[in-house]
This record gives sequence, C-alpha cells and structure tokens, in this order.
Amino acid sequence: MTSTAAGTSAEAREVAVRAEGFVEDLQDWLRIPSISADPEHHGDVARSAAWMADRLRAEGWPQVEVWDDTDALPAVYASWPAADPADPTVPTVLVYGHHDVQPADLADGWSFAPFEPEVVGEELRGRGASDDKGHLAMVRLGVAAHLAATGTDAPAVHLKLLAEGEEESGSAHLASLLAAHREALTCDAIVVTDTGMVGRDAPTVCTGMRGMVDTEIVFRGASVDLHSGQFGGAVPNPVTELARLVAALHDERGRVQVPGFYDDVRPPTDRERAAWAALPFDEPAWLAGSAAGARATAGEEGWSTYERLWARPTAEVNGLHGGYGGPGHKTIVPHAATAKLTFRLVADQDPARVLAGVREFVAAHTPPGIEAEVIAGGPGVPPLICDVDSTLVTTIREAMGAALGAEVLPAREGGSGPEALLSTELAAPLAFLGVMLPSDRIHAPDERAVLPLLLAGAEATAHLWRLLGARGL
Amino acid sequence: MTSTAAGTSAEAREVAVRAEGFVEDLQDWLRIPSISADPEHHGDVARSAAWMADRLRAEGWPQVEVWDDTDALPAVYASWPAADPADPTVPTVLVYGHHDVQPADLADGWSFAPFEPEVVGEELRGRGASDDKGHLAMVRLGVAAHLAATGTDAPAVHLKLLAEGEEESGSAHLASLLAAHREALTCDAIVVTDTGMVGRDAPTVCTGMRGMVDTEIVFRGASVDLHSGQFGGAVPNPVTELARLVAALHDERGRVQVPGFYDDVRPPTDRERAAWAALPFDEPAWLAGSAAGARATAGEEGWSTYERLWARPTAEVNGLHGGYGGPGHKTIVPHAATAKLTFRLVADQDPARVLAGVREFVAAHTPPGIEAEVIAGGPGVPPLICDVDSTLVTTIREAMGAALGAEVLPAREGGSGPEALLSTELAAPLAFLGVMLPSDRIHAPDERAVLPLLLAGAEATAHLWRLLGARGL
Repeated sequence: MTSTAAGTSAEAREVAVRAEGFVEDLQDWLRIPSISADPEHHGDVARSAAWMADRLRAEGWPQVEVWDDTDALPAVYASWPAADPADPTVPTVLVYGHHDVQPADLADGWSFAPFEPEVVGEELRGRGASDDKGHLAMVRLGVAAHLAATGTDAPAVHLKLLAEGEEESGSAHLASLLAAHREALTCDAIVVTDTGMVGRDAPTVCTGMRGMVDTEIVFRGASVDLHSGQFGGAVPNPVTELARLVAALHDERGRVQVPGFYDDVRPPTDRERAAWAALPFDEPAWLAGSAAGARATAGEEGWSTYERLWARPTAEVNGLHGGYGGPGHKTIVPHAATAKLTFRLVADQDPARVLAGVREFVAAHTPPGIEAEVIAGGPGVPPLICDVDSTLVTTIREAMGAALGAEVLPAREGGSGPEALLSTELAAPLAFLGVMLPSDRIHAPDERAVLPLLLAGAEATAHLWRLLGARGL
Repeated sequence: MTSTAAGTSAEAREVAVRAEGFVEDLQDWLRIPSISADPEHHGDVARSAAWMADRLRAEGWPQVEVWDDTDALPAVYASWPAADPADPTVPTVLVYGHHDVQPADLADGWSFAPFEPEVVGEELRGRGASDDKGHLAMVRLGVAAHLAATGTDAPAVHLKLLAEGEEESGSAHLASLLAAHREALTCDAIVVTDTGMVGRDAPTVCTGMRGMVDTEIVFRGASVDLHSGQFGGAVPNPVTELARLVAALHDERGRVQVPGFYDDVRPPTDRERAAWAALPFDEPAWLAGSAAGARATAGEEGWSTYERLWARPTAEVNGLHGGYGGPGHKTIVPHAATAKLTFRLVADQDPARVLAGVREFVAAHTPPGIEAEVIAGGPGVPPLICDVDSTLVTTIREAMGAALGAEVLPAREGGSGPEALLSTELAAPLAFLGVMLPSDRIHAPDERAVLPLLLAGAEATAHLWRLLGARGL
C-alpha cells in the first residue's frame, strides 16, 4: 500500500476508527439494487434514496430531503451549513454524486452475486461499491471525520450534497431537477465525486471530462432485401455504402474527417502534457485492465494513449447492423443498414456544431440510390474542463496528497457526464475528487472498490473542507 | 399478350384443352408448404414428393420413384423411355427441377396467404407458383401435350425427370443423391427448368448462371465490449476495422480487390454482348420490378446492368453486425463484428481459388489488435455456362420461339444453383428452359406465375421433345 499509507493526521485517525462501521454500512446500501435503467428497479431507487436520507439524518445533517417532485427518479439533497450559516465569507460547496447503479446481470459474467456485497481482502465487491455509492459513503465518512478531527459540530464550509437517482441512465431529468431546486443548490463550487485515478500508484485528480454527441445513421436502399443473384453487383448495397462512410470517418492518421471537427478543439497545455507524460503507463496492464482484454492500442497519430483518451475528440461506432445475421448464409442485398455513432468531444467543442458537421459528412457520403437519415440522440453533452490553477483544484490536489502520501497529478477522464450541465446551470466552477481505479470494473461485471482508497478519499474530503474553510475560494 | 399468343400448332391446341385442369392441379400442389429450409415442414416436403409421384403415375409415366434413401429430403424420379427403350440413337434427356419451396411468412409482407393459391386474372398467386412447382407442372403438361400432339404413347426422346426436395435450402445432399442414383440418371443432356426470361416482351433463354463462394468474416478486438469513454479513440474498434475491410473490397471503379479475383474470368463473347445490348432494358421498371424498389443502378464501371449481373463476378455483403443495435445508444467500443459475404463467380472462376484470395485479402486488411477469422460456408458453387451454339441450346430457342411467337435471345441469370454439379456429376451438357419473370417475386413475398407463360412453356417443352427426337443431339 505504498500510495495509501494510513495518514498520521487527526482526520486519518478519525477515519480509521470509523472504518469498520463504514464498510458494514456501505454493504447495507449495496444490497439495494437501485438500477435506474430498469423500470422494474425504480422502487429500489426510491428505497436507496430513503436509505441514504435516513443515514444522513442519523449522521447529524441538519437538512435532508428526498426530491421526488420532478420527473427525475428520487434524488437526495442535504445541507450542513458552517457554524454561522449566514457568513458569506465561508464558501458554499456542493458535492455531487449519484446513488443509482448500472444494471448487473449474473449472466453477463459476474463471478459473484452483484447485490450481495462482500469483503475480500482489501476489496469490497458488489455493484455500486465504487460507482457511486462507495464514493457517496466516502463523502459522508469524510464529513464525520472532519467534524471529529476539528472538534466542532459544523463543517468549515457550507456543505451541500446532491445524490442524483438516474445518472447511470443518462441524467435525462437532471436539468429539470436543477431548475426546480435552483435556490437550494446555490453554491460557490461543485465537487463531483464520481471519478477516479490513473492507478493506485499514480494518484491523480480528474480535471476534465469529454462531451458527447450521439447519432444514428440509417442508409436505405431498396424497399425490401433483394436476391443477390438477381440484383447483386448492379444496385447499391446499403451495408457496403455505410461501411464506406464509416471507413471514411477517419483518415489514415486517425483524424476524424467530419467537417470542422477540430476547429474549436482546445489543446492541452504543455504543462498538462508534461504531467501526463510523467504518469506511469503500463500498456499491457492497461490493455488487460478493466477486464478489457484489448489486444493493442490504436488511434490518432501524434498523441499518447492518455492524450487520445483525455484531450482528443473521437468518432466511435458503437454498433453497425444491416442484413442477415443468422446461421448460414442468405444471399441478399440488404435493404438497409444502421450505424450508431458517438463522438466524444473535448474543450471547447460545441455538440450542436459537431452534429451539424456530422450531418454534412453523411450527406457528402451518401451515394446515388441510397437514402440517408441522421437521427440525433439529443442535444449532446458539452465537454467539461476545470481550471487546473484554481484554488479549488489545487486544494483538492493538496487534500488528496495529504491523504495518499504522494503527489497528486492532474489527469482527465475520457467519459462524459452531467458535469457541464451542473456547472452551467448552477453557475459555479466544478472540480472532481474520486478514487476509482481502472480495475474497479465500473459498468462491468465484478465491480469492486479498494477499501483503503475509499478511506483515503474520505480523509481527503475531510482535509478539503478544513482547507477550503481556512483559505476560501 | 403480345409475346405469348396462343400458338396454332398441335402442341398449342393440346396444351389449351388441358389448361383448366392444369391450373386446378397445380393449386392443389401449392397448398403443400414444402419448405425445405424449415425442419418443421420436412413432412410437407415428403407429402409434396408423394403428391408429385402420384400425379406422374396417373399421367402415365412408366417408372416413378420417390428417393428417400440418402440424407437428402425426398426427391422424385421418373422416366418415360421413347417407343424403343433400347434405341441408342434416341437421346436421353434429364429434366431437372425442384418441388421444395422458399419459406413464406405472412409477416414478411405477403398480401395474400402464401399456401392458399388463387387465380387473379392471368396470374396464379402462391408460394411455388413459379419457383419451381409451376415449372415442374409445366413440364408434366408438356409431356402430355407432346404425346397427344404426336399421337403416340411414348415421347420422342428417352425422358427422365428429377425433382429435388431441397434446392431452396442449398442442395446440401444433391451430390450424394446423384452418386447414389448415378445409373438411373445417366443421360445425354440435362434441361433445367428453374430459370426465367428477361421480360414478357423480351423472351430469352438462360445460358449461364453464376457460381458462388460464401464466407463469414469475424473481427475480434477486446474480450468484452469496452466503455467508449474509457477506451474510445485509443484501441481498435472491430466494427470500424471491418467496415474498412468492406470499403476496401471494391476500388472506386467498382472492381473487386480480392487478389487474383479476375484472373480466370472468361469475358462474354462479342455476340453475346450484342444480343444483350439488343434486349430491352427499362431501368425504372427494372428497379421497381421484383418488389425491389431499388433507387438506382450501380456497380462495376464499363459494363451494362445485364453484363454486371450475368457476366461479371461480384462481392456482396449480405449482412454486417457488430456492437449495440437496440434502442437509444450504448457508449461502447464493440468487442467483435461479423460480416457475411458472398461472391458471385462467372465462367471460369474456381471457388477454391477465390476463397484463397479472400483469405489473403482479409489477412492484408486485419490491423494490429484485431484477430480475424474467415469461415467458409462450404466448397462453393462453380459457375455454369452453356455452349450457346450447341444443338441443345439452339433447339430450345427454336422450341420456345415457336411457343412464344417471337425470337428468343440468349441471356444469363445472375443467381447460382446446382447446375455445375449436375453437369459435372452426370457428365452431360446442360441447358435451361424456363419462363419465370422478374415480376414473379420468387424468394420474396407475393410470389406468382403468369399462367399464359406457363402454358407457353409447356408448349415449348412439347416442341422440344419432338424436335430433339427428330434431329438428335
């Protein structure tokens, strides 16, 4: 445990004495299968919210509410002001996380029951152990440790907590939830606790996430599948044509060919690139990690794997389907084909502008005899990038560094979440504090969390509230 | 009915007096859903064979057998020697057809019940009305008309008839069937009655069919689908890579890029090209025909549509599937993708050599990080080309011309069947006599036959036996 040596601070001690209870308590929560993507589990999402609200009340949070007044699945809101609730010099910090979890079907390849959590060595195994119940529990533990370590009954900052109930199914109603509770959520900064680190021996703090545009492209040829003997070679084949479009998405250097795609891209700074280059990167381990079993790296020329994932936009085919797929063969010219494409965006790309470029690209790659349709999955998700030099980010690095006993470097994540929406709607800067590892297998079978890291994360949040209370924002 | 004016010959009159009974009898047969591709209908295939054997016996064929002694679904064999069964100067002609039919599911878009045949105007509607029960019934009618017209009780040639029971599911056991009954099937020529004409006003005789190689190509990347946020842009995407392979299958002129693909191709003769150029080609009608609703022609540069279909080999994607295809989006890098490809071959391409080229092509287009597998669907089907100047083909043209009252031009078909196998195994030249139209919708919903054409086809076969008996082969 080189990078997670138990700290010697008061916060570390207060976390340590609460560790056993923390693990039991978290296991209790993990038994509730709060799968937001599955309507059959929406009752469990509500149970999970009620469970969390009960715990927050028991832990002394003065204001705790379950929000079920919008179309959103139940969210939990809590606030714990500083000693003088009206003191405007004390920053108000909103912690964001989510209490819903990804689906988990034993048949997907789990080697243990996803909702019967158990501790194995340093690991807590179960769906949600890391993403994100483990992290919300970590925040709760951190508040308790902070209060005990500082010997007070109110945190050093005005604390607010929002646990969304449908992040894993796309946060479809988060905007209306934020709008309905705009006043309660007023804050000076947002700390999202739903991200991770590059590795246990490479502690990092996330400083940005990619945005996303998702589209479905349909190519239609004849009105029915045609006999390939009667028509093959003499009419366009929608599958072939869509394959050509997909092949044309990237040039031979791996650059996306959507018009204007890179126009707005803000490159990483030299300092960021240097920091990322200093991070360990064990390619075989990375490929094998996360149950990936990928066989090679690939991508845009001139960029490292971290840069490709964190600072470069992508065009990814999530699925392509057309024609016969059953056993044996069927000699047809398929009548249609569909591709689902997602584009990951980086600062300062605009989803609407990218989508317009995609429409232009599809039109330019639709041959005679094919009718194309581009179906946008929604308005898209803007990218989110933190101000790496802000007090908020540097204090998080300091707090995490104190808990982990190591320097914490800036990094980013390649995924997309509701962070830009939170930051924009609440008009507050946003940063991240999370200790997930690539080996946590979030969104995959056999999800787990490394308990010493969750404890260190709790200690880090305890440091963070103390430090931000002292220095402001 | 410009091209199918009732002839004034004795054969025409004998066909005409039997027309009503012919239609009723055929409807009876069409009510048996002899779908060889569906094991649940294999009992119906046997019923269909028994039905046909009964009819042949009733019509006076001296030798009728149902062959169910191999793994093949029941086939019907019949023979009717000429007056002197031992006369070696009389040619022995084997007629080949099949009594099984394509699947037909109302849900596929049928506007009438596929196995409740009915006459609407000149059309007989129902699965198998044209392909191939209608054509086998046509041959039976032609024999009766031939005997009546010539006033004899034996045909002018030694006639044999083979009705296969699993042509529509790929003739998997035809080779063993032929081997098991090699002696009975000995013949001087084979006439296949399972093809059609370019149009009702463009009577043609098929003089060749394409061969086929079918393959499945599997590209595998990681062992599971990967999160496109965590891995997208940094590992190869099997769907994208397979799309690139498909896109590389053809160059910008539409030529197939499989190594050596065109090395053995025998081009059509100048006379054939001239004959094909003289055939009417109404592109909009052709595109709309066969319920196709295709929107444009396309294909290899420098060749007409007929040439592309009849004399040029193709590479066709019958299906491509990989990744997510459900509602909404799923942000994954798919772990695998599969493409089903069929290659139509023309004289003198060799399926084994083409398959070797395909393996070479796939290997050359498999990038690092992708594992490729090429699964061959079988040994492939060799192409079949007739000797256009043979007595057999010129006599068929003459016989059809007499029945249809118009010149019958040589043409080919783009499909593939067991003809090369028949011709090779039985060591006999092979030709075609069929009156299917593109609008018969064979293999598609709403199959139908044009009754006056089936009657004219019966008359043509009656002429053919008379003419071949007189002139030999």
